[in-house]
Amino acid sequence: MTTLTEDLTSLGRLDDGDVASLDAWWRANNYLTIGQIYLQGNPLLRRPLAPDDIKPRLLGHWGTSPGLSLIYAHVSRLIKRTGQQAIYLAGPGHGGPALVAAGYLEGTYSEVYPQVSQDEAGVLRLFRQFSAPGGIPSHVSVTTPGSIHEGGELGYVLVHAFGAVMDNPDLIAVAVVGDGEAETGPLEGSWKGVSFINPEHDGAVLPILHLNGAKIAGPTVLARKDRAEVRSLLEGHGYEVLEVEGDDLPGMHHRFAATLAEAWTKIRDIQQAARTGEWDGVRPRWPMIILRSPKGWTGPETVDGIQVTGTWRSHQVPLSGVKDNPEHLEILEKWLRSYRPEELFDESGAPTALVRDLAPDGDLRMSASPHANGGRLTRDLDLPDFRDYAIDVPKPAELRAESTRKLGEFMRDIYSRNPETFRLFCPDETNSNRLGAVFEVSDRGFMEHVTDADVKISNNGRVMEVLSEHNCHGWLEGYNLTGRHGMFATYEAFAMVSASQTVQHGKWLQEARHLPWREKVPSLNVLLTSTAWRNDHNGFSHQGPGLIQVVLTQRGDVARVYLPPDANTLLSVADHCFRSRSYINLIVIDKQPQLQWLTMDEAIEHATRGASVWEWAGTDDGTSDPDIVLACAGDVVTMETVAAAQILKDKLPSLKVRVVNVVDLMTLPRPKDHPHGMSETMFTELFTDSVDVVFSFHGYPGAIHQLVHGRPDADRFRVRGFIEQGTTTTPFDMTVRNKASRYHLVMDAINNSKRLPRGASDLKAWCEAQLARHEQYVVEHLEDMPEVRDWSLGDWASRG
Amino acid sequence: MTTLTEDLTSLGRLDDGDVASLDAWWRANNYLTIGQIYLQGNPLLRRPLAPDDIKPRLLGHWGTSPGLSLIYAHVSRLIKRTGQQAIYLAGPGHGGPALVAAGYLEGTYSEVYPQVSQDEAGVLRLFRQFSAPGGIPSHVSVTTPGSIHEGGELGYVLVHAFGAVMDNPDLIAVAVVGDGEAETGPLEGSWKGVSFINPEHDGAVLPILHLNGAKIAGPTVLARKDRAEVRSLLEGHGYEVLEVEGDDLPGMHHRFAATLAEAWTKIRDIQQAARTGEWDGVRPRWPMIILRSPKGWTGPETVDGIQVTGTWRSHQVPLSGVKDNPEHLEILEKWLRSYRPEELFDESGAPTALVRDLAPDGDLRMSASPHANGGRLTRDLDLPDFRDYAIDVPKPAELRAESTRKLGEFMRDIYSRNPETFRLFCPDETNSNRLGAVFEVSDRGFMEHVTDADVKISNNGRVMEVLSEHNCHGWLEGYNLTGRHGMFATYEAFAMVSASQTVQHGKWLQEARHLPWREKVPSLNVLLTSTAWRNDHNGFSHQGPGLIQVVLTQRGDVARVYLPPDANTLLSVADHCFRSRSYINLIVIDKQPQLQWLTMDEAIEHATRGASVWEWAGTDDGTSDPDIVLACAGDVVTMETVAAAQILKDKLPSLKVRVVNVVDLMTLPRPKDHPHGMSETMFTELFTDSVDVVFSFHGYPGAIHQLVHGRPDADRFRVRGFIEQGTTTTPFDMTVRNKASRYHLVMDAINNSKRLPRGASDLKAWCEAQLARHEQYVVEHLEDMPEVRDWSLGDWASRG
Repeated sequence: MTTLTEDLTSLGRLDDGDVASLDAWWRANNYLTIGQIYLQGNPLLRRPLAPDDIKPRLLGHWGTSPGLSLIYAHVSRLIKRTGQQAIYLAGPGHGGPALVAAGYLEGTYSEVYPQVSQDEAGVLRLFRQFSAPGGIPSHVSVTTPGSIHEGGELGYVLVHAFGAVMDNPDLIAVAVVGDGEAETGPLEGSWKGVSFINPEHDGAVLPILHLNGAKIAGPTVLARKDRAEVRSLLEGHGYEVLEVEGDDLPGMHHRFAATLAEAWTKIRDIQQAARTGEWDGVRPRWPMIILRSPKGWTGPETVDGIQVTGTWRSHQVPLSGVKDNPEHLEILEKWLRSYRPEELFDESGAPTALVRDLAPDGDLRMSASPHANGGRLTRDLDLPDFRDYAIDVPKPAELRAESTRKLGEFMRDIYSRNPETFRLFCPDETNSNRLGAVFEVSDRGFMEHVTDADVKISNNGRVMEVLSEHNCHGWLEGYNLTGRHGMFATYEAFAMVSASQTVQHGKWLQEARHLPWREKVPSLNVLLTSTAWRNDHNGFSHQGPGLIQVVLTQRGDVARVYLPPDANTLLSVADHCFRSRSYINLIVIDKQPQLQWLTMDEAIEHATRGASVWEWAGTDDGTSDPDIVLACAGDVVTMETVAAAQILKDKLPSLKVRVVNVVDLMTLPRPKDHPHGMSETMFTELFTDSVDVVFSFHGYPGAIHQLVHGRPDADRFRVRGFIEQGTTTTPFDMTVRNKASRYHLVMDAINNSKRLPRGASDLKAWCEAQLARHEQYVVEHLEDMPEVRDWSLGDWASRG
Repeated sequence: MTTLTEDLTSLGRLDDGDVASLDAWWRANNYLTIGQIYLQGNPLLRRPLAPDDIKPRLLGHWGTSPGLSLIYAHVSRLIKRTGQQAIYLAGPGHGGPALVAAGYLEGTYSEVYPQVSQDEAGVLRLFRQFSAPGGIPSHVSVTTPGSIHEGGELGYVLVHAFGAVMDNPDLIAVAVVGDGEAETGPLEGSWKGVSFINPEHDGAVLPILHLNGAKIAGPTVLARKDRAEVRSLLEGHGYEVLEVEGDDLPGMHHRFAATLAEAWTKIRDIQQAARTGEWDGVRPRWPMIILRSPKGWTGPETVDGIQVTGTWRSHQVPLSGVKDNPEHLEILEKWLRSYRPEELFDESGAPTALVRDLAPDGDLRMSASPHANGGRLTRDLDLPDFRDYAIDVPKPAELRAESTRKLGEFMRDIYSRNPETFRLFCPDETNSNRLGAVFEVSDRGFMEHVTDADVKISNNGRVMEVLSEHNCHGWLEGYNLTGRHGMFATYEAFAMVSASQTVQHGKWLQEARHLPWREKVPSLNVLLTSTAWRNDHNGFSHQGPGLIQVVLTQRGDVARVYLPPDANTLLSVADHCFRSRSYINLIVIDKQPQLQWLTMDEAIEHATRGASVWEWAGTDDGTSDPDIVLACAGDVVTMETVAAAQILKDKLPSLKVRVVNVVDLMTLPRPKDHPHGMSETMFTELFTDSVDVVFSFHGYPGAIHQLVHGRPDADRFRVRGFIEQGTTTTPFDMTVRNKASRYHLVMDAINNSKRLPRGASDLKAWCEAQLARHEQYVVEHLEDMPEVRDWSLGDWASRG
C-alpha cells in the first residue's frame, strides 16, 4: 500500500498499469459472468466452442452485470490504495454472476467453497453450479460471500447500506441502485438516509445510481427524464451529484476513477472535519455518483439484426438459441474471446497476476469483509439484569401499569451500556409507545435543522425515528447483518407496510443458518405495541394483527412470536430476544395501562415454559380433567379470559375451568413442526387430549387452527380472535364486535363444556343480557352521552 | 356562475366579499372540528362553556385540520367560480373532523345521514358521534362523504389521486400530502405519477404538500430541509413548484387564492393545448403547491406556558385536561369563541348564508362528487364472450399451453371495447406474464422521452407499467373507486410489497358494503402469475405465496381467492371477476406452459361449483366412499396430484382414489364463515365425512387447516404446500424440496388410506427410490451436467 498522501494525489489518475489492471479484472469478471450463464464445458475456451459446451437451459441476467463489475473493480483499486474498509451492495441483485465472479477472482469464493477451486475444474464448477439444481441461486444471495443484500425484491439497497454504516465510522457502503429499482417506493423513500447519518460516529454510504436505461421490458423513468431533473431530484435529497457517462474505453476507466476518487475524498473530508471538531453540525452534502453506461455493455451489439446492447433485450440472456443456432454460437464465442481469456487465466486456470493484482488483501476484499458476515463482529450485548426493572405484583390483577414503559427503562440502560452496538428504530412513536426512557440517554438522531423548541432531538442522537416503516425495518436489518443489535417498534397494523421486508429478511436468515461460514447475527426484534384491540383514538385502518400471520409462514428455525401478557413477562421475553441470534422475534403487547398478573419469578418461569396453567384463575384442582379449558394468548384477550373464568367461578362454581396462558405461540405446534413445539405430554397436561378448548387469541383465529393441527383432537379448539371488526371505539366494544368479550367466552365455555351444571342456561341468558345492555348502551351513547366506562378496559372482573 | 373569462381574470384576486366568505367558511369548519373533538353539549356556545359540556374522553387530531380546511375552502371557491370537477384527498386522514365538517357545511352530510341535520340538534349529533362508540371513526374514512382515501395508513394519497384521474379528463384530484406522510416510501415513490399522466385523455392531480413542520412527536425531514432543497426535489420529480407560506390573515387567503388560481390556470392551459392538438408530446411540467402554515393554526398559542401551535404538541388534542381544569376550559371557550360562531350558525343552528355561499352546488360539491362515490358512475364492462378464447381440450393433460396468454387475448378485446374504462397495471411484466396481446391495441403509457428503439410505449398508451407495486396497486384502487375497471398483475412473491394496500383497500370495501349510500365499485382484481413453484430463473426471494394468506384474513364479504388450474377455468374465473363488484379477487395461476385439463364447458361448470371431483383422474366409482381423497388447489400441485393418482392407478389399481380440484378456495370454509362456503352436503359429497384427505395446496399448508376448521373431522386433512423451501431450481425439484411431489403424495395416500392393498409397501419403496434418484440426480448434475429433464415439469405422468 502506498502512503495516504500519495494516494490522495494519484488516486483519481490512472497510469497505463492501472488501466491494464482494471481492464483485465473487469474483462475477467465479465468473462466469468457470461460463462456462468452459458457454459457447461470448455470453460476457458481452450478449444472452439461447441453446442455441447452450452448449458441445456440458459438462465441469468447479463444486462446489469458489466456495470456492477466495473464499479467493483474501481472500488477494489481504491481500497487497495487507501486501506478503506468497504462493502458492496448490489441493488440489482440479479447481477448475481458478476458478484459471484468478483468473490471468485478475489479468492474468497474458493476459501468458503473449496470445491470451487482456483483452477480450470473450479471454473467449470463455478459455471455449472450457477442457477442449477443443487447449485447456487441466480441472485446476490446469502450464498454470495461479501453480500448482506440479496437484491431479489427491489427497493432496499440504500436502507441496508445506511443501516450498515450506523455506528460503523470506518466503513463505506458502496450501494449500487439500479434504475429499475429506483422506481420503487421503498427505494425512493430511502435516499433521505443522509438526513440521519452523523459523520462523526457513523460511516458513509456512497450511492451509485446506475442508469443503464431499461428494466425487464422497457425504459425506466430516471433514465428517460431530462438529466437536469435527475440531478435536481438527487440534489434535493441532499447529495452532491457526480456524473460519469459513456461506453468508450479506456475513457470510462479514467473518468470513473477520477469521479470515485473525488467522491471518496469528499467523504473523507467530511468525516475528518467532523472527527477533528471542525464540523458546524450542518448536514453534510454527501457525494453520490450517477453512472450512465449501456445495458449489457461489451455484449453483442445486435443479434439477428436487432439492437441488443443498450436495450432491455440484454436484461437476461441476450443470445437465447445458442445450442441449436450456429450463428448465435459463433456470436457467443466471439463475445467470450473478446475478453481475451488467455490473458486472464493461467495454464492451470487460475486468475493471472495481472488480474489478481487489482484486488486488496484479506479482510479488505469486499467479498471477505467481516462487515458483510456480521456474525464475525457480533458481540453479546452487555445487558443489565432485566429483573431489576420488575414490577412488584403482590397479587394477580391488582395493579395496572404500562408494561412497555418498563421495557423502555430496560432499553435505556442497554443504550447506556452499549453505546455503539444498540439502536431503537421506530416510525415516530417512541414516546407514544411508552419507550421514552431511552431519551434520558440518547436523543433522536436527525441531521436537518433543529430548533430551540425541539425536544430530545439532535445530530448526535441514536434513537432512530423516521416516519417510514421501510426505512426503520431496513436500517435495522443492515445494522443486524453487520453484527449489531436493535429493536424495531411500530404500530401493529402498519407492520404490514414492511411485511415484505420481514419475509425477505426471514428468507435470508433461513438460508444463512445452513451455511457454516456465515456466522449468526443478532436477531431482528420487532415490537408491536399499538395493537388492534386498543386503538381507540384511531380506527379500523389501525386495527390489524396481520404480521403475526406473516411470521407464521416462515420456517421454524427462524420464526418466533411472543405475546407476553404483562410487564414482567415482557421483560423476560425481551431479555431472551436480545440474547438470541438469527431469529425474527415478534413481540406483541399493548402500550396502554394494563393489569399485571405475574411476579418476576412467575413471569420467568412462564416465559421459559412458553405456556402454563394459571391455576389461580380457574377452578380446576388439577386432579382430573377440567370441564373446559379457557386458553389465551395476548394481553387484552387474556384479561377477557380471566374475567370470563371469574364469572364462571362466581356464577357456576361447580364447573371445573382451567385457564391456560400462552406466551410463546410457537409452543403450540408439534415439535416436528417447530423447535419450540411443546411435547405431546406437556400439551396434554395443559390442554388435555379431549376436553374442549375455548382459545382467545390476539390475532386472526385461523392462526391457532393452523398451529394446533396434528395435536390430539385439534377440532376441539374453538378460537375467538380478531375477525376484522373495528372502528374508533372502546377496547371493550372491540371485544364485543369481534365476539371475543368475556361474555362470549363464558357462553362458549358453557356451549362446549363436557357437562352442564345447574344454572348454566341462566348464566347464558345473563351473558346475552349483558351484551344486549352493551349494545343498548352504545346506541344510547350518542343520545345522552353517559360517562364512557370502558375506555381503559379497567374493570376486568364481572360487570354484573 | 360567472363566465369563464371573468373567472380567469379575477380568480386569483379576492375582493372583500371573497375574503369574508372564505374566512367565514374556514372559521365554521374549524369551529366544527374543535367541537367534534371536545363537545358533548352546548354545541353552539349559546351559554358559557361548562365542564359538563366536555366529552369524557378527548380524541381526535387538531394539528393538521386548519390547513386541510383552508385548502378545502379555497378549492370550493375555485369550483364555484369555474365549474371545475374536483375531488379532495386528505393524505393526513386523521384530519377527519375537518373533512366531516366540510361535508356538513356543504349539506351533503345531512343528505346521507339525515339524523345529522342542519340545526342545533344535528350539530350536537355531529359532535357526539365523532370518535365514539356507535358513531364515526376519527379518520377521513369510508363514512365520510366525498372521500376515496381514508388516510390512516400513510403513503397512498398520490397513488389514489393519480388513479382517480386516469381516463377522467374533466377531473382534478386535489391531493394534500402531509409532511409526515411525505417521509414514507410509498409516498416518495408516488410523485412520479406525472410521468404517466396524459393531458389529453387524463385529468390532473394537484398535489399540495402541506408542511406544518411536525409529525406525532417531532419535526419532519421536508419541513426542516433547506427550502431550496425541497424545491429542487419536487422540480426533479417534474413539477412546477408554487409556494405559499405564513400565518397572517387575510394575507394567507390572498396568497393562497392567487397561487391556487395560478396552478389551476396552468393545468387548464396544459390540458387545452393537449386537447386542441397544440401539444408537442413532451411531459408537461404540472404545477404543485407547497403550503407552509403552522401546525394547529388558529389554536391556542401556548398552554401552561408551553408553545403548542406550530409544534408537534398540537398534533392531537392540544388541551387535554379541560373537564377538570378551569383554566384549560377557559382557553377552550376563548378559542371556540374566537371563530365567532354567532356569525356562522343561525338561530336554528344551520350554517348562515355567509358560510353556505362559498360552496358550489349539487354534484360539484367535493363532498358530493360522484367521482368519490364511484359506484354512481360505474358501468358494466362491455365484455366479449370469454368462451371465444377457449382452448380446445380434447382430453385432459394432452396439450400444454400458457394459460395466461388466453387471458391476455381476452383483456386485449376488453381494452378495445372499453377504451376509457379498463386498464391493466403491472410492474414490468405484461409480456413476461404472457399478457402481451394487450399491446396489439394499446401501448404502455409513458410520458418521459421515448426513443425509436422503444417498443409499444408512447404517451398515448394505457397499459400501465411502473416498477412499483405500490404505484400499480394504488393507481388501480383510485381507478376502481372512481368507477372504472382493471387488473393488477404482479409476481406472486412481490405482491407482499403492496400487501398492506390490499389489507387497507379490503377494509375500505368491507366498510363500504354496509353504507347504503356508497354504491358498489368494480372489484380490485389481482393476478399473480409468476408463482412460487416455477420461478426457475430467479430464486428464493421470488418464491412466496404470502398474499393468499393475507387475503384470507379479510372478511368474507370481500375476500375471494381463485386458483384456476388451466386456461379455460382461468377465463371463466376472470369473466366472473370482471363482472363482480366491491370484492378483492385474487387469482393465482402460473404463466408457463402448463397442462390443460378441462374443456370450456367443463371449466365453466367447475368454476361455477368452485370445487369438483375429477372422476377421470381417480379410480373412485362414486358408488361408495373412496379409500383416500387426493385434493388440490393450484396449477402445479394439481399436476402433481393427477400424476400421483395416475401412479396409484397404475401400480395399486384396487385402491379407490378420488381426485378433487378446488378453484374457489372460499368454498372450503363453512357457509357461516364465508358466503361461498359450500354446504355440508356438498362438502361431504366431495370429501366424504371421514376418509382421509391428502390436500396439495399452492400456498402455505396452514391456510387449508384454517379454512376447513369446523368441517366434519377436519383433522383428517393432511396438507402439502409451500413450506419455504426454495432456490433457483427446476419446478420438479421445488415440489420435492417442499415435500409435495407426486411421490410424496403417493406415500401420503398410502399412509393415510383406509385400507392398504397388496403392493402398497412396494409402492412406497418405489417412491422413496424415485426421490433418492432425484436427489442423486441433483448431486450428479453439477458433476456431469446431464440433460435437465424437469425444467418445464412437462412429464406429468409417472416417471418410472
